[in-house]
Amino acid sequence: MNLPSLSDIQSAHERIKPYIHQTPVLTSQQLNKLFSCELFFKCENFQKVGAFKFRGATNAVLSLSDHYKKKGVVTHSSGNHAAALSLAASMNNVKAYIVMPESAPTVKKNAVAGYGAEITFCKPTLQAREETTKIIMERTGAVLIHPYDNFNVICGQGTAALELLKEASDLEMIVAPIGGGGLMSGTSTTTKGINDKIIVIGAEPLNANDAFISFTTGILTPSVNPLTIADGLLTSLSELTFSIIRKNVDQIFTAKEESIIECMRLIWERMKIIVEPSSATTLAIIKENPDFFKGRRIGIIVSGGNVDFRKLPF
Amino acid sequence: MNLPSLSDIQSAHERIKPYIHQTPVLTSQQLNKLFSCELFFKCENFQKVGAFKFRGATNAVLSLSDHYKKKGVVTHSSGNHAAALSLAASMNNVKAYIVMPESAPTVKKNAVAGYGAEITFCKPTLQAREETTKIIMERTGAVLIHPYDNFNVICGQGTAALELLKEASDLEMIVAPIGGGGLMSGTSTTTKGINDKIIVIGAEPLNANDAFISFTTGILTPSVNPLTIADGLLTSLSELTFSIIRKNVDQIFTAKEESIIECMRLIWERMKIIVEPSSATTLAIIKENPDFFKGRRIGIIVSGGNVDFRKLPF
Repeated sequence: MNLPSLSDIQSAHERIKPYIHQTPVLTSQQLNKLFSCELFFKCENFQKVGAFKFRGATNAVLSLSDHYKKKGVVTHSSGNHAAALSLAASMNNVKAYIVMPESAPTVKKNAVAGYGAEITFCKPTLQAREETTKIIMERTGAVLIHPYDNFNVICGQGTAALELLKEASDLEMIVAPIGGGGLMSGTSTTTKGINDKIIVIGAEPLNANDAFISFTTGILTPSVNPLTIADGLLTSLSELTFSIIRKNVDQIFTAKEESIIECMRLIWERMKIIVEPSSATTLAIIKENPDFFKGRRIGIIVSGGNVDFRKLPF
Repeated sequence: MNLPSLSDIQSAHERIKPYIHQTPVLTSQQLNKLFSCELFFKCENFQKVGAFKFRGATNAVLSLSDHYKKKGVVTHSSGNHAAALSLAASMNNVKAYIVMPESAPTVKKNAVAGYGAEITFCKPTLQAREETTKIIMERTGAVLIHPYDNFNVICGQGTAALELLKEASDLEMIVAPIGGGGLMSGTSTTTKGINDKIIVIGAEPLNANDAFISFTTGILTPSVNPLTIADGLLTSLSELTFSIIRKNVDQIFTAKEESIIECMRLIWERMKIIVEPSSATTLAIIKENPDFFKGRRIGIIVSGGNVDFRKLPF
């Protein structure tokens, strides 16, 4: 299996730089005090489409062959990758076909439609998504850009950590959420490539803990009907992301739903920034494991900020 | 009447610099496109206590005589000034007494209590606030730091525009909300002092339009029982702030409640930052007067981000 290297990620960064936002790294004295550590939040909620996913999608679109630039791209996604691929495609005059679960938040559906992609809705199961996607590929000849099981997507996602490590020096740890593992694969490859002494930690909802179980047992074990408020983390690792995570990640912690909600609220209230529940999973594992993180300089990848305001958990 | 000058504001800036956050200036391509102008948001929602009020309060506390540093400070406020004065006082080992209306948002009450101030609740009328404040002053010997009818407070508030004008060059207009007029007094003094060609615009809720009426008629006319979602803008101009605003402000526009709510939501959704309704009043007047603002480079003072999440208007 061809695993990405730091230099693949550095090349991706050069490629996507003109298209992405270099997002800010924010700190909060109040949160540092509350959690007895120094936190550096890489704010991908300020990224285009409101999530880190725009990095991977842009790298994938820019890496297309001329053939597929004409035929278009297709994907299935719970939302952020769909919006990201739609915008990345539209910015490069490539046609995008998006398969979305009917249950996706309205704000995410609207975003995708706004970028001019062709949407097909399906039942919210992996099987329905994959079947619908296959039908569209056969009809259009478009190429699948998987949300995370894709070399170029992973390289793009790794560029957020690249910018974070440049801006916040002497980090001792990096924490990122794990859903399908694309962000964590990119983040861990970047981090270990730059300095293998930096401890790389994955954050996962307890209610969607396939990565924790797979990582602990050494056997890839997908989630069955996971149910968590962190709607960006419902997906399970692929062979590719599992291989990268086994190699580069030091530890995975899980967080309870109530910790995720409490930490989401804390970030909103204290930092005045909007983060989605998936992003708060990182702070939630720090809250649940105070001794492990105490006194450390910790980089956190804030994955996204797309929230349906009518369905706030607080 | 002694009106503040640019150099008073510059001195205030030197004085408070070690205590305040130099807040970021954010832009949004989506909002620029939507409103056909270039917007530069000075994010005082990221200021300490979540509002620009910390600037004025800090300047007032640092300007106290030794006598009053020992006796303490007292104020009445709907919330942000209360939190600001409490924190500014506590950072300088000065005792703070705060009179708050019972109706203030819980998040603001908690903030004030958290900074160690002594709170006295009163009915939500100006008369009740002033009487309660007077009783506390007589009992303690503390000095009143009025939320806006105070020279040093106004000088502190003017420092946000100072930073904005330094960071965003060639602005053609500056827009700030008007409640009691402290922020607008400081903002307009700074702006006209630096470049009197920059057009200074006040933004006020239609439902609390005392500044608009006073400015238009030339007669100071306080609001009577104003009712607006912009809870930071319920107060009316004082003689001092009216004098400064008449001298320095070019125009005042009012915004309807539905525009304020819509623009608050737009800022949350597109910029992923939390702003309170008062802050959205600025964007709301731009929305309601597209011809006036079209094509301009406009600085906006985002006044604060303290919101009770259980009472969102959307």
